[in-house]
Amino acid sequence: MAVGLSEPEKISPVAGIKLSSLAAGIKKNGSDDLVVFVIDEGAHCAATFTQNAFCAAPVTLAKKHLEQSSPRALLINSGNANAGTGETGMQNARQSCQWLAEQLECSSEQILPFSTGVIGEQLPMTVFQKGIKKVVNGLSANNWLSAAQGIMTTDTLAKAISKTFFLDGEELTISGIAKGSGMICPNMATMLAFIATDANIEEDFLQQCLSAAVKQSFNAITVDGDTSTNDACILLATNKSENIKLKSDSTEASNFIEALNQVCQHLAQSIVRDAEGATKFVTVNVSQAESTAEANTVAYTIAHSPLVKTALFASDPNWGRILAAVGRAGVKQLDIAGVNIFLDDVCIVKNGGVDVGYTEDKGQKVMNQDEIIISVELSRGDASTSLWTSDLSHEYVRINSEYRS
Amino acid sequence: MAVGLSEPEKISPVAGIKLSSLAAGIKKNGSDDLVVFVIDEGAHCAATFTQNAFCAAPVTLAKKHLEQSSPRALLINSGNANAGTGETGMQNARQSCQWLAEQLECSSEQILPFSTGVIGEQLPMTVFQKGIKKVVNGLSANNWLSAAQGIMTTDTLAKAISKTFFLDGEELTISGIAKGSGMICPNMATMLAFIATDANIEEDFLQQCLSAAVKQSFNAITVDGDTSTNDACILLATNKSENIKLKSDSTEASNFIEALNQVCQHLAQSIVRDAEGATKFVTVNVSQAESTAEANTVAYTIAHSPLVKTALFASDPNWGRILAAVGRAGVKQLDIAGVNIFLDDVCIVKNGGVDVGYTEDKGQKVMNQDEIIISVELSRGDASTSLWTSDLSHEYVRINSEYRS
Repeated sequence: MAVGLSEPEKISPVAGIKLSSLAAGIKKNGSDDLVVFVIDEGAHCAATFTQNAFCAAPVTLAKKHLEQSSPRALLINSGNANAGTGETGMQNARQSCQWLAEQLECSSEQILPFSTGVIGEQLPMTVFQKGIKKVVNGLSANNWLSAAQGIMTTDTLAKAISKTFFLDGEELTISGIAKGSGMICPNMATMLAFIATDANIEEDFLQQCLSAAVKQSFNAITVDGDTSTNDACILLATNKSENIKLKSDSTEASNFIEALNQVCQHLAQSIVRDAEGATKFVTVNVSQAESTAEANTVAYTIAHSPLVKTALFASDPNWGRILAAVGRAGVKQLDIAGVNIFLDDVCIVKNGGVDVGYTEDKGQKVMNQDEIIISVELSRGDASTSLWTSDLSHEYVRINSEYRS
Repeated sequence: MAVGLSEPEKISPVAGIKLSSLAAGIKKNGSDDLVVFVIDEGAHCAATFTQNAFCAAPVTLAKKHLEQSSPRALLINSGNANAGTGETGMQNARQSCQWLAEQLECSSEQILPFSTGVIGEQLPMTVFQKGIKKVVNGLSANNWLSAAQGIMTTDTLAKAISKTFFLDGEELTISGIAKGSGMICPNMATMLAFIATDANIEEDFLQQCLSAAVKQSFNAITVDGDTSTNDACILLATNKSENIKLKSDSTEASNFIEALNQVCQHLAQSIVRDAEGATKFVTVNVSQAESTAEANTVAYTIAHSPLVKTALFASDPNWGRILAAVGRAGVKQLDIAGVNIFLDDVCIVKNGGVDVGYTEDKGQKVMNQDEIIISVELSRGDASTSLWTSDLSHEYVRINSEYRS
């Protein structure tokens, strides 16, 4: 049911990164569920993590390992989130890092663990151990696509992209994969996303670029308003290329930043296009707000409204629901006479009332599309925001009421 | 599909109130859609209204009329919300009050108008005018049940209740009706509810009692987090009884307050029991919070989570979703080691991890019930809250994607 999204075709390898993926038996359906990234020495790693207070054991451990050491590998499993699993969950995360460290002959602090799947169940440690021993045999620089498949849970399509960019006359690569389809409302963090570049780049600047890119990509999407316990976004720079080390004041930094933003936005929008049960891909623009916070509040109120989302599913231009969402968003002293609302280019509400030129036919034409832009003008200031979301369909309810069965 | 709710049987008349209901033709399905309450002179009226900035024309007008005059009648239509209808909508609301005022030989400022139904369409004024002329012929003190039916939209059952209480040795009555099933998240206001008592009561104290009762009833329910543009709760005191006028310091005030609270809670819970597509009636208790605001934030985050609501629909004890909702609620510096979560009496999470005594069987047994209590302890303070909500089912999506068709 993904909207305007197909299987990714070719993902370019990134010098200094090898990957492997296999079906260890953690997922019940027999598909790949264990993925390893092995990183050459000398790489830098930037990361953002979920702000959910109940963050998963692997998130806590990955944060700790990042402080202690430079990562040599990422160990990712799907099918089990290892969240809400208490001290046993933490021991299991530590043990799995230890097993992979033994295979790679590095220290366990050099392994960053990631998990995604059902919350509240312990990892099946026997199959995990066997899987780790096997997975390292399949390492190759060309395994990005199978890795993208191996991290999927309720995703119907793998999410991956490569971009190239130039630094010092050299063509460099940035490749990334992501997973996510439900429990999507990243909060200063992301769903699972793993991105790598061969660029030579200063470590603090790498984190700075990632944080900025995440803000306008993974942090600007919502499916159901539910922030996951396991969100993480990792950006690896292998420093393999010959370019002069990129810093925040480098003249060519914009080439890298632009490529990184494109990769993050593509992966983030792919998550929404493949949202659980999605039949529509919806952009919500709010402009003329007093502050970005105010613009975000209005945009998220629209994007989270079950009534707006079911109207989108029905292709029903029931714009009163959008208007009601704007009205309840809690904007202080909102003068409704300043509010304009558009579906694509069709003005539906002008100065707080139905636009004189609006007809149901015009609204219906836009609502029939797979991709819809809802724009709201508040006439209060200069701040604006954009975010991406999906509709609420029978399929969303089916998927989430049958998820564990 | 209503949960633990059946048609109300007998509603006691209230001295000083006559009602009438008919099918004027505003609703397409031919059921009653026009209701009038006629109030004897000398009554007091307390009211709360929606906080949605896009409040409907009748809400704006009812507020204005309440300031100008003592109401002699309530004019209620279902099938059309007269919201988002601009100046024409306001003129139509004014005109409809004028028509009823002519029939009742009072001034139009003595009419309070209320509308509920589709947002953004103009009232069909011709059928409205004909309906008003006819409806006044059917006035009777015994029409509470048909009035409860006449204000319904997507409700599957009428909501009504009577309670009696004693003041100065006299048995008095309080009767009320309400409607509501979707777009339910009252914000310092309610869905449509009309309550009347024959008690003799001081006007300011009447408003004080209503505001307090609404807080723990209509303002403590949510179906989908969508606050309506048309919410209103009206409490009429006809002052017909012989009791000494009730004031805030009257010794017997508690008898009235208790009866009022019971009526409001019954009507509010009836709305949730008959929530669109509801298969479960869920109480969310949050205790040991630092403040009531904090308790409310956690409770509403759980109650609005599409993942918690679909798990409830599936009778799936997927408690990780409750834990994830608590974690993302934005409680500052939440120590998860202090968090306990219960399904009814079954402890699922103790000190932030799975309780040692918890088994899937125990959780399943509770989830199989129609009525479920989710309790969360935060170990942060003494504040607490309770609210009521429903699950998210296929039927909710069906109703809201087919509502206008």
